[in-house]
Amino acid sequence: MGKRIDLNCDMGESYGIYHIGADEHLMPWITSANIACGYHAGDPLVMDRTVRLASQFDVEIGAHPGFPDLMGFGRRSMQLGPEEIESDVLYQVGALAAFARSVGAELAHVKPHGALYNMAARDSAMARAIARGVARAGSNLILVGLAGSALIEAAREAGLRVASEGFADRAYNVDGTLRSRELPGAVIENPKEAAERAVRIARDSAVTAYTGEKIPLHVDTICVHGDNLAAVEIVKTIRQNLVEAGIAVAPMGSFV
Amino acid sequence: MGKRIDLNCDMGESYGIYHIGADEHLMPWITSANIACGYHAGDPLVMDRTVRLASQFDVEIGAHPGFPDLMGFGRRSMQLGPEEIESDVLYQVGALAAFARSVGAELAHVKPHGALYNMAARDSAMARAIARGVARAGSNLILVGLAGSALIEAAREAGLRVASEGFADRAYNVDGTLRSRELPGAVIENPKEAAERAVRIARDSAVTAYTGEKIPLHVDTICVHGDNLAAVEIVKTIRQNLVEAGIAVAPMGSFV
Amino acid sequence: MGKRIDLNCDMGESYGIYHIGADEHLMPWITSANIACGYHAGDPLVMDRTVRLASQFDVEIGAHPGFPDLMGFGRRSMQLGPEEIESDVLYQVGALAAFARSVGAELAHVKPHGALYNMAARDSAMARAIARGVARAGSNLILVGLAGSALIEAAREAGLRVASEGFADRAYNVDGTLRSRELPGAVIENPKEAAERAVRIARDSAVTAYTGEKIPLHVDTICVHGDNLAAVEIVKTIRQNLVEAGIAVAPMGSFV
Amino acid sequence: MGKRIDLNCDMGESYGIYHIGADEHLMPWITSANIACGYHAGDPLVMDRTVRLASQFDVEIGAHPGFPDLMGFGRRSMQLGPEEIESDVLYQVGALAAFARSVGAELAHVKPHGALYNMAARDSAMARAIARGVARAGSNLILVGLAGSALIEAAREAGLRVASEGFADRAYNVDGTLRSRELPGAVIENPKEAAERAVRIARDSAVTAYTGEKIPLHVDTICVHGDNLAAVEIVKTIRQNLVEAGIAVAPMGSFV
Repeated sequence: MGKRIDLNCDMGESYGIYHIGADEHLMPWITSANIACGYHAGDPLVMDRTVRLASQFDVEIGAHPGFPDLMGFGRRSMQLGPEEIESDVLYQVGALAAFARSVGAELAHVKPHGALYNMAARDSAMARAIARGVARAGSNLILVGLAGSALIEAAREAGLRVASEGFADRAYNVDGTLRSRELPGAVIENPKEAAERAVRIARDSAVTAYTGEKIPLHVDTICVHGDNLAAVEIVKTIRQNLVEAGIAVAPMGSFV
Repeated sequence: MGKRIDLNCDMGESYGIYHIGADEHLMPWITSANIACGYHAGDPLVMDRTVRLASQFDVEIGAHPGFPDLMGFGRRSMQLGPEEIESDVLYQVGALAAFARSVGAELAHVKPHGALYNMAARDSAMARAIARGVARAGSNLILVGLAGSALIEAAREAGLRVASEGFADRAYNVDGTLRSRELPGAVIENPKEAAERAVRIARDSAVTAYTGEKIPLHVDTICVHGDNLAAVEIVKTIRQNLVEAGIAVAPMGSFV
Repeated sequence: MGKRIDLNCDMGESYGIYHIGADEHLMPWITSANIACGYHAGDPLVMDRTVRLASQFDVEIGAHPGFPDLMGFGRRSMQLGPEEIESDVLYQVGALAAFARSVGAELAHVKPHGALYNMAARDSAMARAIARGVARAGSNLILVGLAGSALIEAAREAGLRVASEGFADRAYNVDGTLRSRELPGAVIENPKEAAERAVRIARDSAVTAYTGEKIPLHVDTICVHGDNLAAVEIVKTIRQNLVEAGIAVAPMGSFV
Repeated sequence: MGKRIDLNCDMGESYGIYHIGADEHLMPWITSANIACGYHAGDPLVMDRTVRLASQFDVEIGAHPGFPDLMGFGRRSMQLGPEEIESDVLYQVGALAAFARSVGAELAHVKPHGALYNMAARDSAMARAIARGVARAGSNLILVGLAGSALIEAAREAGLRVASEGFADRAYNVDGTLRSRELPGAVIENPKEAAERAVRIARDSAVTAYTGEKIPLHVDTICVHGDNLAAVEIVKTIRQNLVEAGIAVAPMGSFV
């Protein structure tokens, strides 16, 4: 069986009159959409539209729950108790699932957003709380986390299907963690370079760390960014390069 | 087949550290719980606890969606567009349904809260938007509305199961609408009188209007209030009187 | 004394990561900025930046309070009690005044936003509640309202300084109210025509109604829109035309 | 000059229909009220009522800003940037100051709430950001912080008036920090014992640590809790004991 990879993108991050993202232009090129659920971004109208858009392009629908912090876009760490985390996740996933189901689609995956994702990569108690919330929302759901992180481990323990995520446009440390955004060289801005890294990650299950070592990196899905129209070119380039390299670009649900 | 009636109560209206309601004491006496969904009241932790509590007492679980107005407890009229109403309802119902399903229960009904309920009793466009939201959340859901109101009509048009609601402790106008709370005599505060009215409504499908006329009133469910511990006595009295009058007190889902 | 007119614009409507408006480009051309206060738009960081920006261009700073409805951008009517209105206005104006004062500026005016502005144009109870909130925030504040509206009357009754507002890009009914946005021809999209109307309003204290009649229209300030970069051209054109017509463009605080 | 001490209490923590605290019963016994500002608790109507109540009892009015987290009552740590902290504090203090000023009172002090208070006790960057926000709101304001904490230091550096706070009902570690609430014996529940501790703190500027050592503790104000009616008895007892011990109970503004 050949190599397969999923391309996921955060979607539906508009709110009320506030519009961000290039959802309409990116949807044709990705295989999984992580849709904001109203806590850190997104509102019910936006969720409805985004679910329909994903469905129209046969993109797999995922929930993208975050901290209850619209002002900070869910990027600010918050110390919530494990029961709060579990129920906050269940709430958001349940709400999005209702939109999906109502247009004849099924929720395929859940990917935590921002600070929730980052904290859960290291904090096992938080990771397990997320996994419990997801498991309660649906035993067949895929939980997406940073490859090698505590979230992946917690998802496995909870008996959930798991998708390990990698980043084509982020530098990696030698231990497989992401180089901090506050350091120079953390983000690869050249689209061609990002596309090449995507191919190597998907094909070789490896990536060159910032310090030059080749390190193993097993991922099921590569995150692409959708903030602006330039992002569309990057995503198209990544997808094209993957296909040309003989890698099947397919929704994670078909292979994890 | 004998007369049957459901007793419903608004539940799960606490929020964060703020505690209101006597949920634990009322749950044993009612047959349907309308649980707040986080917009006008309730938070994910409270929703979780309340769903479990209802489940434990075999009380049917319903969603109680309201306007996005925690500061006004959903009691302040808001002019939302029909698409906003539809998606706001779907969002809230979907979130609550996830909690119910996760404890092995199914959502049975939806009853709009406060200003949303009152506006939908008169405003057909809003009523139809609510019905669409509920239908999208589940075609088997029961929509609860004021007996004889535009909401009942919209629910029927949408092909939904319908439960007409009456109030044992509110005075009725001769046209079947509720006497405004701003007028004297709008609320029946005597528990014995409320219980007697409940029996007459359930048994005779009629009620004595404020002006003295006997008017028809066909209801499937009677709303009881749960704000304080005194409410518990009223609910117990109502239930006892109904049972003594030979009326079966049963969840609406068993007969509508 | 020659004719004078103020040009006001809604500003500081961004929120968190959400950016709207062309504040930096419009500020040089207006004389009064109405700055959102965190209820329908704006957050403390945005308020801080916008107050500093206005201060830098010697633009008079005003508060732009709205309904507590970020999801609806304060454009959805809400039925709040008069005490709620009064305290919601005082809260928002007080918060913005603190930012102004902290950079050595003084708050000059208050202009209600969206549905609050529109409702207060017709609803005297709401208008008086707003006026009370403004008066409590500062007896020297100018309250800006639609020319000829209930809000202007309430502001006068409350002993406040008053600025009557007109719109260069909106069609007027013969009674001096604005033609509803839902009707064709409600918005004048041609910048040149809008600029000409601005001059006529400022110079002649009159405007041609939609039905052709010339009607009196006494205004102290003309509202210009700042949603996009195209708006900048319109504002520049309006200002230029006014100056060429011999009308002094000056902050309302200097003449009302 | 004899010993003097202030008694402060958190007030105005109700929100919408949610009522907590025994404000009316506690106000006669304290000298400074820390009033919630709408972020973690409180709404404009509650702020208005609480400011009037404090004014009526000649209790000094302070702002009690917290994290924007109503669901968590501001008790959950949040990682905000220093500019966010500064502007969030200025926003809340400004709003409350407007209510105070409008009833002829002046804001006397600012005491951060919950997680903001606790984080600022240890985190100098956060403490300095709070101090900047307070200084911008008014150069004469007193900043209240845990005795010996980073917040006190930051307030001094910023040139603000400072009040060091102590707790009569909390156990102290030997280094002057509070014993964690998660450990046994952290809270002194016996009113008599709390009152005796209050006297010793005020009179001797010392307290017996949990491990038995007598440690120095210089405080200007003692925090009393107002969650329930039982609290009223405790506060009365504390005040009575202080007066009997010859200590003047007076608002912090009169002596710091």
